[in-house]
Amino acid sequence: MKRKGKLYLIPTTIADNSADKVISSYVRETIKPIRFFLVEDIRTARRYLSSLSIYESIEELYFNILDKNTTEAELPKIMSPLFEGKPVGVISESGCPGVADPGALAVQYAHQNGIKVEPMVGPSSILLALMASGLNGQRFAFNGYLPVETNEAAQAIKKFENDSRSKNQTQIFIETPYRNNALIGHLLKSLHDETLLCIASNVTGETEMIKTLPVKTWRKEGITLPKEPALFLFLAL
Amino acid sequence: MKRKGKLYLIPTTIADNSADKVISSYVRETIKPIRFFLVEDIRTARRYLSSLSIYESIEELYFNILDKNTTEAELPKIMSPLFEGKPVGVISESGCPGVADPGALAVQYAHQNGIKVEPMVGPSSILLALMASGLNGQRFAFNGYLPVETNEAAQAIKKFENDSRSKNQTQIFIETPYRNNALIGHLLKSLHDETLLCIASNVTGETEMIKTLPVKTWRKEGITLPKEPALFLFLAL
Repeated sequence: MKRKGKLYLIPTTIADNSADKVISSYVRETIKPIRFFLVEDIRTARRYLSSLSIYESIEELYFNILDKNTTEAELPKIMSPLFEGKPVGVISESGCPGVADPGALAVQYAHQNGIKVEPMVGPSSILLALMASGLNGQRFAFNGYLPVETNEAAQAIKKFENDSRSKNQTQIFIETPYRNNALIGHLLKSLHDETLLCIASNVTGETEMIKTLPVKTWRKEGITLPKEPALFLFLAL
Repeated sequence: MKRKGKLYLIPTTIADNSADKVISSYVRETIKPIRFFLVEDIRTARRYLSSLSIYESIEELYFNILDKNTTEAELPKIMSPLFEGKPVGVISESGCPGVADPGALAVQYAHQNGIKVEPMVGPSSILLALMASGLNGQRFAFNGYLPVETNEAAQAIKKFENDSRSKNQTQIFIETPYRNNALIGHLLKSLHDETLLCIASNVTGETEMIKTLPVKTWRKEGITLPKEPALFLFLAL
């Protein structure tokens, strides 16, 4: 029986022009022999791999789509190189595959079939924001998106704030760039004066901003974010 | 008024002999001009910086302790180079400072004093294990340690399993190496047959093992971990 290939989880950038800063030479060297990739978007992935300047020709690489519409039934086909002993790389649209993206489906399949999975170090806006927030890194929860609608958002924020206080747990949220300022409005309205709120935008990018202040100070200072990827973290005291 | 220095959050390795794999050349270049460091343990930090071969002499570096016994009253003194425009680096005993270690105290102080904080990409066993687990990366909680005592452990595991099921949230725990196998015993006893359990040991190390199986399969196969750092993640279906 052939030895199975490994599934490599390949990090990509989370901000423009940041590959030199966040993609190590170890990652570049390790992915050099890989020819088969599972990617959320072929055009972006091709452009990314091409930007790393590690392949003589990008034409010798094979791409299959692994996105939120991929079903389990498709996995045996797109993962088949692994059973022939060939390594396969997973690349998502941003950051580390498997965290807040569809990569986890391929990883699950790998575990079910005794295929070794190698995660590689790369940028995660969640982790970098948490580090730089100064909030509790001993206990934290990533909760994805908050509801959009005003009343629902207010209720959810209060619930998460209570959880944060009772568990001493940092609560982490993500938002789509065009809704950043609406979410800030909800947070500043619903959170308690003394709750510490960290706003982290364009992490690792040229305009990176990571700032933690009590909610009452944010209210006084005011804040308007550009349409850039952002994270919101809070800890109720 | 002098421009303040930046507080750099400097990642370190999480497994022996792994610096080439997990510490990028960007990190090495960025920390080269830094002379002042806040560290959990001076001997380890000195050895780590020395291993990076970026300083002509390690003797020109200044170290202050920032550990779990550091009080807020000590911060103005150990952070003082920042107010003279000099960069300061924070290094913890393992991985990324500010996540599950005392680094957060320095970061809080920086935010209170308008000092910019730069988190740098490095290895986090929590994030790498989550990526490679195939479990839900869209919603997860890091909960630190589970109770040691058998009955308390069983109760806590059941509570976290219920939370996991109702919120579709991956639950992440850490354990000290010599208690790994006791914790595995508790988990295999208390968790439901179908709950997916990921065991990740010595992440990024030569003996790295990351494996996700339903609890019933772990029970059948059995598992004994070496005394190495490990993480335990589960998702109740």
